Amino acid sequence: MDGIIDLNADLGEGFGRWQLTDDEALLASVTSANVACGFHAGDPATMRRVCERAAEHGVRIGAQVSYRDLAGFGRRAMDVPADELTAEIAYQIGALDVFARAAGTRVSYVKPHGALYNRAVRDREQAAAVVAGIRLAGATLGPLPVLGLPGSELHAAAEEAGLPTVREAFADRGYRPDGTLVPRSEPGAVLTDADQVIKRSVGLARDGEVTAADGRALRMRARSLCVHGDTPDAARLARRVREELTAAGVEVRAFA
Amino acid sequence: MDGIIDLNADLGEGFGRWQLTDDEALLASVTSANVACGFHAGDPATMRRVCERAAEHGVRIGAQVSYRDLAGFGRRAMDVPADELTAEIAYQIGALDVFARAAGTRVSYVKPHGALYNRAVRDREQAAAVVAGIRLAGATLGPLPVLGLPGSELHAAAEEAGLPTVREAFADRGYRPDGTLVPRSEPGAVLTDADQVIKRSVGLARDGEVTAADGRALRMRARSLCVHGDTPDAARLARRVREELTAAGVEVRAFA
Amino acid sequence: MDGIIDLNADLGEGFGRWQLTDDEALLASVTSANVACGFHAGDPATMRRVCERAAEHGVRIGAQVSYRDLAGFGRRAMDVPADELTAEIAYQIGALDVFARAAGTRVSYVKPHGALYNRAVRDREQAAAVVAGIRLAGATLGPLPVLGLPGSELHAAAEEAGLPTVREAFADRGYRPDGTLVPRSEPGAVLTDADQVIKRSVGLARDGEVTAADGRALRMRARSLCVHGDTPDAARLARRVREELTAAGVEVRAFA
Amino acid sequence: MDGIIDLNADLGEGFGRWQLTDDEALLASVTSANVACGFHAGDPATMRRVCERAAEHGVRIGAQVSYRDLAGFGRRAMDVPADELTAEIAYQIGALDVFARAAGTRVSYVKPHGALYNRAVRDREQAAAVVAGIRLAGATLGPLPVLGLPGSELHAAAEEAGLPTVREAFADRGYRPDGTLVPRSEPGAVLTDADQVIKRSVGLARDGEVTAADGRALRMRARSLCVHGDTPDAARLARRVREELTAAGVEVRAFA
Repeated sequence: MDGIIDLNADLGEGFGRWQLTDDEALLASVTSANVACGFHAGDPATMRRVCERAAEHGVRIGAQVSYRDLAGFGRRAMDVPADELTAEIAYQIGALDVFARAAGTRVSYVKPHGALYNRAVRDREQAAAVVAGIRLAGATLGPLPVLGLPGSELHAAAEEAGLPTVREAFADRGYRPDGTLVPRSEPGAVLTDADQVIKRSVGLARDGEVTAADGRALRMRARSLCVHGDTPDAARLARRVREELTAAGVEVRAFA
Repeated sequence: MDGIIDLNADLGEGFGRWQLTDDEALLASVTSANVACGFHAGDPATMRRVCERAAEHGVRIGAQVSYRDLAGFGRRAMDVPADELTAEIAYQIGALDVFARAAGTRVSYVKPHGALYNRAVRDREQAAAVVAGIRLAGATLGPLPVLGLPGSELHAAAEEAGLPTVREAFADRGYRPDGTLVPRSEPGAVLTDADQVIKRSVGLARDGEVTAADGRALRMRARSLCVHGDTPDAARLARRVREELTAAGVEVRAFA
Repeated sequence: MDGIIDLNADLGEGFGRWQLTDDEALLASVTSANVACGFHAGDPATMRRVCERAAEHGVRIGAQVSYRDLAGFGRRAMDVPADELTAEIAYQIGALDVFARAAGTRVSYVKPHGALYNRAVRDREQAAAVVAGIRLAGATLGPLPVLGLPGSELHAAAEEAGLPTVREAFADRGYRPDGTLVPRSEPGAVLTDADQVIKRSVGLARDGEVTAADGRALRMRARSLCVHGDTPDAARLARRVREELTAAGVEVRAFA
Repeated sequence: MDGIIDLNADLGEGFGRWQLTDDEALLASVTSANVACGFHAGDPATMRRVCERAAEHGVRIGAQVSYRDLAGFGRRAMDVPADELTAEIAYQIGALDVFARAAGTRVSYVKPHGALYNRAVRDREQAAAVVAGIRLAGATLGPLPVLGLPGSELHAAAEEAGLPTVREAFADRGYRPDGTLVPRSEPGAVLTDADQVIKRSVGLARDGEVTAADGRALRMRARSLCVHGDTPDAARLARRVREELTAAGVEVRAFA
């Protein structure tokens, strides 16, 4: 094979009456499910159902932890004091794990959502607070891998704390030459052309390379590729990405 | 000794900036702490702190599960569909357990809060839904004892599901001759005279007897006595109850 | 013309990232918009946008007040104490009115949502509490008409308080012979066949008659017809209902 | 008289079962009540009660608008998109006004709470969004005065939008030589000595002067003085401040 890659997607991002992601269809394509834990999305009944379905599909379950922000879908960065953020992270992981265990599996990794993901790229204090929350949950779950941006403060904090890190890349997001993501507020932040996304997926997974916003080739080694689930045709795109990766000789497999 | 009794109290019933219970003082007197899990009270940082302090005091931690109702402090009965209630219960237990484990202990029992406690006395469907939630969490925690009113539907459902039940009595609540509590909306529902509460505590714990609202002696075997924590002087009363129980030859000890 | 009828629909029933109703399409067909006020759905930005669009369409704005229950979409009946319920109703009306005024119009009526609607049919205390909330808002808005089920406690309380009442009927809900709705938990509660719904709409609006669940014709005078907005094809059905009513000689016009 | 000053305090900062401020006692001393509107504190029943009591005391009612953050008591700065923040501000003002009107008065001014207050000192975009929300509510309430820090972006935005501004000072907060507040994370941020607070109150109100953290006298003209209500003895301190101001020849009177 020419490389191994994990495919992760955000699942269970509804709340009560509202749905967003086509969980069932996405589960057929991805190898890791970032399950919303109730703070930006994800009511308990949805969490339970997604865990059950993920277990049936053999898809690994990760805790998609977030700021407490249903109204803003976790996309509003918040100055949460470190001790509060730490406790909020642990709370979410513990809540999700109950459903994962009931489904015969367990929470296998953690990935921050939305604004917290972005903030923890550069904010050392919040990155450390997130990692402290993951370690708090470690009394139950052991040292959980942290899915995140290579070179982020989150990964630095995780490594310092002895937690495994998993390097993540985005096939449908623009990259700056320094390896950071083009902010959503700028043009070129999100790529919507399916063929382009697929091409980038293969480039990332097989060749460890992606074209940056300035046209230059960027080295980008990643063990997991994020497939967005909250767009129309998300499930179809995820399936195509998986098929094309396989066709290109890349093994699609969850990280250990 | 002339009997064994557990003393339980509701702890951690603040939320963010707000506090209600004098957790530290209560922990010096009780043997079981019903810790709020975030649905009627109890933000994650408070949950963490209460679990740490309970562990230091050697006080057992129980999940005080509730309807999702911060605005009503869980005192508004709700017609929650069974599958949603089940998932909400499991969610709360899992979230709390993470803090209990991090403190070196674990969630050892479950007690519904407020309106859910009262509803589960007579509502068979909700009682079953609560028990199903406890069993869901059982994949993580094993069969957790259910603290509740003797003769309640909650206890019936727990027994049917193979969960241990713990009989609870209230020294500061009025009883009807049939063993049910005088509703809070009626006179005589809550007793505030400390001496009377202490006398009833001893009567319940040592003699298995309490005076009902009509003056008759009522047989009431209980393994745990609830001491309310949200009143002024609650902590002082709890200490006196414990002292007088000990003086009366009753052993104050958590249930197994 | 052979009768006059108002068409009302629930609008703005999203929250933050989540959407539910095709507000724009529905506004082209209805004459009254029941706008969610933030308690079961309806974040402030959505409320503002729906008010602006309703004003542009010349559609009247009503406050769709609810229990505080985002997780249950307001479909969980709650035992809210009367004074709290009263204040919650007034709060929602006031919040919505700010957006209606900014759009050049105002809140013109009130309709309870979901479980509160159903509860206020028979629960005299909650019906009175809702009406008290509407009257509280009356210091700002004057006596607002109350949209509800004919014969309901809500209408009785409104009349007693001197508020106008508007009789509502449902073309897509089954009726019992006594004029109450078939509960959603029973078969025949919701009709999904478009032709049947249209036929019943005309029957209700033009003839004041609907076929009950037992097949008998039921007299049902209504001034407003509810068109549900949260189903697929809801907007298309609303347009057809309006067209067929007009074709049948019924004038579709908001109540005064 | 030697000057005129308004005394404002945050009131109604409980939520449901939780209370924080001694509203009744504070209302006896202040001339302006910043009433929490439900986003950081303030359930509807509390809002109603505080408005009624404020009206009885002849105390003016202001909307203490906040980020949506019950868990953090509005003390967590949030990156809320401008249009969402604008709508959230208007929503809160409208909700409060219903209770003020029912009590025979109206919302007379707006003061942001906590993290939003601090953020709007320097963040031009959020300051403008807050002002846009106040203007949105202006269709109901006319141009509302904005209580805030002299020289803040909030005041600049208000002036640009044609809204009156009211200059506020804090007798119990440390000032930097440039007229900004010492952050709460630094020593000297909050003064707790009652005599010192009273002395500074008189200095600010009568002489337009306060001693900065570096010991130098700082010119500080203010029309309103904030008295904190969430500390022990807050009500007693407020009464003493008022008495001493009066004794010093300062007229304590609400701004127009």
